Amino acid sequence: MPTDLNAPTDLNAPTDLNAALAHLDADREHAVALLSELLSIPSVSTDPAFAGHVKDGAAWVARYIEALGLSAETVSADGGHPVVIARTTDKHVANPDAPRILFYGHYDVQPPDPLDGWTTPPFEPDVRDGKLYARGACDDKGQVMCFLEAMRSYHATGQKLPCHVTLLIEGEEETGSVTLPRVLEDRIEDLQADICVVSDTGMWEGKDGPTPAITYALRGLVYFDLKLYGPSRDLHSGLYGGVLANPANLLTRVLGKLMDDGNRVTIPGFYDDVADVPTEEAAQWEKLGFDEAKYLGDVGAEPFGEAGLTTLQRRWSRPSCDVNGLYGGYMGEGAKTVIPRFAGAKVSFRIPANMDPGKLAQQFKDWVHTHDVGGCRWEITQHGEADPVAVPADSAWVQTASAAIQQVVGRPPALIREGATIPVIADLKDKLGLDSLLIGFGLNTDSIHSPDEHFGLDRFHLGCRCHAALLAQAGRHG
Amino acid sequence: MPTDLNAPTDLNAPTDLNAALAHLDADREHAVALLSELLSIPSVSTDPAFAGHVKDGAAWVARYIEALGLSAETVSADGGHPVVIARTTDKHVANPDAPRILFYGHYDVQPPDPLDGWTTPPFEPDVRDGKLYARGACDDKGQVMCFLEAMRSYHATGQKLPCHVTLLIEGEEETGSVTLPRVLEDRIEDLQADICVVSDTGMWEGKDGPTPAITYALRGLVYFDLKLYGPSRDLHSGLYGGVLANPANLLTRVLGKLMDDGNRVTIPGFYDDVADVPTEEAAQWEKLGFDEAKYLGDVGAEPFGEAGLTTLQRRWSRPSCDVNGLYGGYMGEGAKTVIPRFAGAKVSFRIPANMDPGKLAQQFKDWVHTHDVGGCRWEITQHGEADPVAVPADSAWVQTASAAIQQVVGRPPALIREGATIPVIADLKDKLGLDSLLIGFGLNTDSIHSPDEHFGLDRFHLGCRCHAALLAQAGRHG
Repeated sequence: MPTDLNAPTDLNAPTDLNAALAHLDADREHAVALLSELLSIPSVSTDPAFAGHVKDGAAWVARYIEALGLSAETVSADGGHPVVIARTTDKHVANPDAPRILFYGHYDVQPPDPLDGWTTPPFEPDVRDGKLYARGACDDKGQVMCFLEAMRSYHATGQKLPCHVTLLIEGEEETGSVTLPRVLEDRIEDLQADICVVSDTGMWEGKDGPTPAITYALRGLVYFDLKLYGPSRDLHSGLYGGVLANPANLLTRVLGKLMDDGNRVTIPGFYDDVADVPTEEAAQWEKLGFDEAKYLGDVGAEPFGEAGLTTLQRRWSRPSCDVNGLYGGYMGEGAKTVIPRFAGAKVSFRIPANMDPGKLAQQFKDWVHTHDVGGCRWEITQHGEADPVAVPADSAWVQTASAAIQQVVGRPPALIREGATIPVIADLKDKLGLDSLLIGFGLNTDSIHSPDEHFGLDRFHLGCRCHAALLAQAGRHG
Repeated sequence: MPTDLNAPTDLNAPTDLNAALAHLDADREHAVALLSELLSIPSVSTDPAFAGHVKDGAAWVARYIEALGLSAETVSADGGHPVVIARTTDKHVANPDAPRILFYGHYDVQPPDPLDGWTTPPFEPDVRDGKLYARGACDDKGQVMCFLEAMRSYHATGQKLPCHVTLLIEGEEETGSVTLPRVLEDRIEDLQADICVVSDTGMWEGKDGPTPAITYALRGLVYFDLKLYGPSRDLHSGLYGGVLANPANLLTRVLGKLMDDGNRVTIPGFYDDVADVPTEEAAQWEKLGFDEAKYLGDVGAEPFGEAGLTTLQRRWSRPSCDVNGLYGGYMGEGAKTVIPRFAGAKVSFRIPANMDPGKLAQQFKDWVHTHDVGGCRWEITQHGEADPVAVPADSAWVQTASAAIQQVVGRPPALIREGATIPVIADLKDKLGLDSLLIGFGLNTDSIHSPDEHFGLDRFHLGCRCHAALLAQAGRHG
């Protein structure tokens, strides 16, 4: 439970970013202690056994927010995990006419498995070499606390906030934010804002080292479980081999045709809606100093993909198609001479700006059914569908955020895309008409979703400072 | 452990087939109880976790044989599972100059997976509708017991055996009989015989119903575990999708090219050594009254394979290629957006007379390595390699066995090939110069290698009777 949040001494003081930043500098240990409290709650959203802990996570966040003088609600829809919602009113803000930021983040975490990969237990936060190790340290508790601590830096120095803030901190991001759209619909009035800020992405890691970044585009996602059923039971491959359709043979035959030898997807019309990258934007990417050798070398890979494109172009602006899993027949050690009853694959597509996940889903299903599978039967289950996201890279809000980062770091942020997907961004656009600013402080090496997840304390502090400056700049926005 | 094997009353009685058959008829329940004891031992040879149970299986068989008055040895080579060997001496045989049958069978079984497909647990034998359900009920414990019970029918009726018998009951058939050739070499003197009898095949299922059969040709086998390794760890498909080689994509791409759309294997030279079926033999097959509609309909399949061939031709005289299993990446429920570190497949080939498994193994490995896999690395493990088998269909021993079957069933057996593989048959020919008589009592519907494997008790009884008659006919052979 949060304690000693330094109750404000004078709520009528004018906003002073320098005072807020000075507080953040002086109060670093305390900030780490607060984050560690939150990290010690095992709020694993995917496992029903942890539902109580997820609730505890929401309650901790709500109490923290209330200690800042705001009212916090925990709401849920359709039996989902709680969402913490809080809104400043005019009394919290130095200039009540200032714009409103909706800050979105999540307090739930991935399962800690495999447990034996952790140096210290995943829910007993531990500082080593200037890094805080715990499940959720970066994704996303650490990044949520950057923003909340930025708010606290005003409160603790006796100041009102420079702009309005709405907080939307959910507990189902790691399971696909399934019930969040319903919460957005239910609370559509309460959630009106001028801009959404999300801190669940990474810094730009160029050849000159990491630098804060604003991510202005994300790829969307379409995910399938593709199962092919053949004979009514597993068969002996000696008695039946060569005389009937083996679903494992035919699944690989069909999947093998999904991309050509040039690594392009063969589904008719697949590339029709893929937007070209404007020349100016492509030139901008060149200047980012992308370190391809490190990016791929860190994971033991070499460049491989569509011909005539750079790795960054492939990752940010082109669709991808990945088999995420294969299963069926004999999967154990050694040999079993079986013709399996069924075989399956997890297949997903990342789709860049302008592609329509619903259209692709239909194209994919139609394409699958064009193949002769010798009487076998398809079962295609779709898991998730997320629109790609692209916000104008030259908007006034991007300029505002850039100014804030420039103020703290001394140089402008990198403007980047990312290949990953944050489904809620599209929902916020769709339901609330909100564009999002993605300002994150993660690194590829933070081991999010893996054992020994961590967050560098210098980046935690940097994140707090940047968000404090963003609040100040937002107060001057427009 | 075998119990109450009805100790003989008079070892000097003359051999009397009718007395033996009468005993088999009267003692059916006891025979089922003995087989059930053996079936309750989970002697799964492919999984090291079951090694102790495999040993128990060998010990049970050895004790059973010793209860018939023979000495039984359990021997092994190169750390393999034990082989049970026993030989009659002159004192066991009514006419010490009679020929010697070497009976080969196996007490090991396939894994019972998938466990949830079984109506009753695989190692708790259960009789339903006149069928005995358990892993190994047919393949091959039930069929081994047909022969052993035939021997017991002479012993139990106070008779010596009509001919010499050597028993060779191994524990590695389901993993390719890897160490058996070494045992054959080590014991080459002890294993000399006039003919080998194997009971691990099926009856002929023509349009007139099942009839006992002598199988004179088998396909060989080459089996691979094919694993493709990519990045050094599982990766997030949003951050890395489309920029590096996904081993699951590339495994399916390569496997997808292994056969063309006409269902012919594309490995160069693959069909070079496949022998044509002599016209006379092909005509003989036509007369067998093969019921394709039932054969395929029973397993919910339709004909599918190389163009221009009948199902029987595909099954008996053509090579086949089957993916027996697929694994890697996320195999659970729902979605996980991972680029897997590796993906794998079990791939096997059945090869008809004249193909060379060693040559094919090399061709396959060479072919795999011709593909661009974007820096991923293959790990190809071979599990088993067996020559195809063809024995003369008109030999004196086939006539002897036919006479025995005629005696019991009232009509001659069908002479057939089979698509399956019994690796040891080629080894017995190679190392001991022995031809084999394949006389089996399985049906295609016995679900061998599948859940709910079973053996009809009427066929178990028929098998016991036929082998009792074979022993009698063998005593008169030559």
